[in-house]
Amino acid sequence: MTDAKEFSYRLDETAQRVEAALDRLLGFAPLVDEIARPSRLLEAMRYASLGGGKRLRPFLVIESARLFGLTGEAPLRVGCALEMIHCYSLAHDDLPAMDDDDLRRGRPTTHKAFDEATAILAGDGLLTYAFDVLADEATHEDAQVRAKLVLALARAAGLGGMVGGQALDLAAETAGRPLSQNEILTLQAMKTGALLRFAVDAGAILGKASSAQAQALSRYGAALGAAFQVADDILDAAGDTAALGKRAGKDAERGKATLVSLLGLNGAIARRDQLVEEAVAALDATGLGPVTQVLKDAAVFVAARKN
Amino acid sequence: MTDAKEFSYRLDETAQRVEAALDRLLGFAPLVDEIARPSRLLEAMRYASLGGGKRLRPFLVIESARLFGLTGEAPLRVGCALEMIHCYSLAHDDLPAMDDDDLRRGRPTTHKAFDEATAILAGDGLLTYAFDVLADEATHEDAQVRAKLVLALARAAGLGGMVGGQALDLAAETAGRPLSQNEILTLQAMKTGALLRFAVDAGAILGKASSAQAQALSRYGAALGAAFQVADDILDAAGDTAALGKRAGKDAERGKATLVSLLGLNGAIARRDQLVEEAVAALDATGLGPVTQVLKDAAVFVAARKN
Repeated sequence: MTDAKEFSYRLDETAQRVEAALDRLLGFAPLVDEIARPSRLLEAMRYASLGGGKRLRPFLVIESARLFGLTGEAPLRVGCALEMIHCYSLAHDDLPAMDDDDLRRGRPTTHKAFDEATAILAGDGLLTYAFDVLADEATHEDAQVRAKLVLALARAAGLGGMVGGQALDLAAETAGRPLSQNEILTLQAMKTGALLRFAVDAGAILGKASSAQAQALSRYGAALGAAFQVADDILDAAGDTAALGKRAGKDAERGKATLVSLLGLNGAIARRDQLVEEAVAALDATGLGPVTQVLKDAAVFVAARKN
Repeated sequence: MTDAKEFSYRLDETAQRVEAALDRLLGFAPLVDEIARPSRLLEAMRYASLGGGKRLRPFLVIESARLFGLTGEAPLRVGCALEMIHCYSLAHDDLPAMDDDDLRRGRPTTHKAFDEATAILAGDGLLTYAFDVLADEATHEDAQVRAKLVLALARAAGLGGMVGGQALDLAAETAGRPLSQNEILTLQAMKTGALLRFAVDAGAILGKASSAQAQALSRYGAALGAAFQVADDILDAAGDTAALGKRAGKDAERGKATLVSLLGLNGAIARRDQLVEEAVAALDATGLGPVTQVLKDAAVFVAARKN
């Protein structure tokens, strides 16, 4: 295992590259066939996506692609597209009609900093732009790769993935009964797991991995995603608002069933650690050897993070 | 010119094919890699996209592709993807934070029939699914065509197109001064023009049109889109709520500058008729001859429509 500080340094370094790339993509000059980039909308899209976040998802794209020797613009742009989807989902989830949150990453949420209509449109704009970035030749010269990326991201982010997970999450609050463990696992696999898994699947698509390698990486992504979400439940139960940059204890307040409420804090921690082991085992199964170390570190990092 | 009844019949027939295809695409069985299709969300996506509408955009995709001898599933699926984008935009634009409309196509708007959160997510789901449909091999065997369609639709629907146009429209309401004619034309080209133009561009992409043909078709699409929007302004000023299926007279009520308020009713009608002529001339410039008649009829239909 790598030193945690070294891993953090690498993560930060990538976050800076992602920030700079997002800043360029969300520049003020219209692209070909764009009629104009209305400034207030663009500002809101920039606000919702720049200036924060660990950029874990782009990091996973970039490090997964690196397993196959692929570096440079392609994984960076795919990482940015994925981050746009993640950021749009936060802007929409924070809306008054949804989770009604005022604070995100220690800053006012997009609808607080702008207004509700602008936050809805900024989310729509980021969601749409993600597919623009993926389909652009600048991302990859092979149209087959671009089309695969679009399909995989749309499927991970849509009705049968992230958007569906958020719908299940909202439904759970008004269901009048706590969710079962299976229902929670499905919800979490959709709401947060699908995008995390896409991150490593994207690396395999970009790197033209063998089918066996792609499947092993996908198992890693699924375990990592599940570990991420248990860690989230643990943080909400045990974390503090200042470190989180968002309000802690919300789940219990809302009477929401989580893995912590079902398994207890120790049970949840045991599950989290088991998922990290599964993630590491899946990486070993790729047969790619020592280059997988950074993704192993990522699984440990995700499980142990404080925010 | 074709008999208007014959054109209407053809439009209706296509609308039925589109309705059936959307119904299949929005079925209850999850696709590969979809974890589940949560039923309430799916119902809202179906509500927002099924059971109404002239399906003008899919019609234009299908008839543009037919110019190049292409018929069947490909243009139908592309038309459905485009219609999903159109329908998501209606669901989001109707939200209380946006235009705050209760009525659409004579039925309660999506947030009225369900709730705000579900309407936001249903819109997000339709937007995402549109790109899923385009990127799927079932749409076209050539990945180059699929990637081009994704890029063109994302650019037409996003920040520099439809979403940007809606942002400008909202900004106009609080600007404290009426928009200039140029500002209105930009807004309209973005808000409604870009998607209508994409419809015919998609036909050219699917049909692998020559560059000169694609450009001429694109000019047709731009003129048609502009004619559509002048006709909309005229309808809002002169139409009645029952025929429209939505409230008439809203523009004047809101003190909104439109081409009718700037050019007068007769001036707007003259401009509309000139745009139809431009659309027809652009079709003649394709050199494709009599097969373009149905698209000429479409321009006349768009200008003369009552809702």
